[in-house]
Amino acid sequence: MHFVTFEVNGKAEIGVLSPDKEFVIPLQAAEQLTCGSTTLPGTMLELLDQGDAAVAIVQKIIAKLDASCPKLALAEVRILAPIPRPRKNIFCIGKNYVEHALEFEKTKDASVAVPKVPVIFSKPPTCVVGTGAIVKNHSHMTSQIDYEVELAVVIGKKASRVAKEEAYDYVFGYTIMNDVSARDLQKAHSQWIMGKGPDTFAPLGPSIVHKSAIPNPHDLFIKCAINGELRQNGNTKDMVFDIPTLIATLSSVVTLEPGDIIATGTPAGVGVGFNPPKFLNPGDEMRLEIENIGVLVNTIEK
Amino acid sequence: MHFVTFEVNGKAEIGVLSPDKEFVIPLQAAEQLTCGSTTLPGTMLELLDQGDAAVAIVQKIIAKLDASCPKLALAEVRILAPIPRPRKNIFCIGKNYVEHALEFEKTKDASVAVPKVPVIFSKPPTCVVGTGAIVKNHSHMTSQIDYEVELAVVIGKKASRVAKEEAYDYVFGYTIMNDVSARDLQKAHSQWIMGKGPDTFAPLGPSIVHKSAIPNPHDLFIKCAINGELRQNGNTKDMVFDIPTLIATLSSVVTLEPGDIIATGTPAGVGVGFNPPKFLNPGDEMRLEIENIGVLVNTIEK
Repeated sequence: MHFVTFEVNGKAEIGVLSPDKEFVIPLQAAEQLTCGSTTLPGTMLELLDQGDAAVAIVQKIIAKLDASCPKLALAEVRILAPIPRPRKNIFCIGKNYVEHALEFEKTKDASVAVPKVPVIFSKPPTCVVGTGAIVKNHSHMTSQIDYEVELAVVIGKKASRVAKEEAYDYVFGYTIMNDVSARDLQKAHSQWIMGKGPDTFAPLGPSIVHKSAIPNPHDLFIKCAINGELRQNGNTKDMVFDIPTLIATLSSVVTLEPGDIIATGTPAGVGVGFNPPKFLNPGDEMRLEIENIGVLVNTIEK
Repeated sequence: MHFVTFEVNGKAEIGVLSPDKEFVIPLQAAEQLTCGSTTLPGTMLELLDQGDAAVAIVQKIIAKLDASCPKLALAEVRILAPIPRPRKNIFCIGKNYVEHALEFEKTKDASVAVPKVPVIFSKPPTCVVGTGAIVKNHSHMTSQIDYEVELAVVIGKKASRVAKEEAYDYVFGYTIMNDVSARDLQKAHSQWIMGKGPDTFAPLGPSIVHKSAIPNPHDLFIKCAINGELRQNGNTKDMVFDIPTLIATLSSVVTLEPGDIIATGTPAGVGVGFNPPKFLNPGDEMRLEIENIGVLVNTIEK
């Protein structure tokens, strides 16, 4: 199940992609047709609040799919971020792949560069945009915009003091986040919210893939190409702190809630890691892909 | 005008304090009585969304106050955080008083300790509690809980790329925040969300004082006492970066919205600054006071 938020005729709705990924099935209309009533809500956050009950209904809808089911060609709709407005800042993990920690710290000494415990910062909800959206260049404030492809975990259940062994019970699914970063602001302000938090700096999507379709989130290729040039080409098996560790760490003191997002860090190959650095320029296209999840494409404002 | 969110008979409402501060005037009931209709909303965030129009109505209600006006003795209600659930993480400023920067960095060299640009981090909405609430001790994760009294600015209007000269136009009012911190987690994780973000670590309130009652927010005493012992005793005139600079800096890249909160940093005297450090213990009472704003009292979980 690939859950999407989409806009048609100026109105945002939620849906799932058809098995061939060519159509969006609008959930409320499809439930009405297949079940004769509508219990599913109109937004992704409300769907996440309904939890397993909503997932069961969506599975029923998909099982009953036939020619009469309402569907919209992907070309007819605009895909928005699956959660257009999270209820709190997105939790992000810094330096969570060894090779990236080394390139970021400009050292070959992993004992210095790789964190001993997760480095956690945040991006405000005002950062979120969907695939296809323009990422603002904020050229009055930065000349060092960088890309970071990341596997993002979407929380499905309230989680407080969760043990690693039970962490996946609290996951709803997975999506892609581009942790767009202004390296000059990130460095100058020491804490990272200025460098990581500018408006539009969290492209998210295109869909949330339910965890049932991703049996092992730690064996997925994860890639980013800038204007067609492959820059990042890693695998989620190489995270320093795995998803259960991140959920256990965060939930040890912070109550996680349905719709919370944890972006799990980026592999090597970001612009600041090159010598000289390869920062983004106006008009550059960022194409991010994670295996079995999808492709997230955004362009820097001209 | 001191705006409060309060609970009576298990229901949360908004109100203003009476001039003698002994009563809460419930806004919806008071508007109904004085104006014959209700246009004011039931929550502080919705009131902030209504902006100056809502403030004008509240002023009208206060002007018409007489013996018939509905009011509740403070002892009859429970004062909640004025914004019980912010829509994004609270923006917080680190090391924004010189003497505190020196005690925090354990140096006498201000050129090293005092930041050149604001240090900005965040606390999730799940941190917020009101005056009188218990602050969890999270003893399974920290043994170094500390207090920080801070003047908190509440944003009243959408603000993007605001000039310093116009910054106060975007302020609704002021309140107090206790930036409770787990120093061991703050240090270990390098980025501060683990140390600053645990549940209940942002006591807020007791009221939001409208800016019309605080002509100069940079001339207020700001104090914190632990179990009656005065620990912090500063003045908001000593901020390194003033409120207009903070709003201009943040809004240069992040769109601020009504209800957003900026906690402006703490003066010297926090527990970690003593030798040996004076961290908080179970049952300790934190009494925070800012001139013309109020008193915020919370106790550490036993």
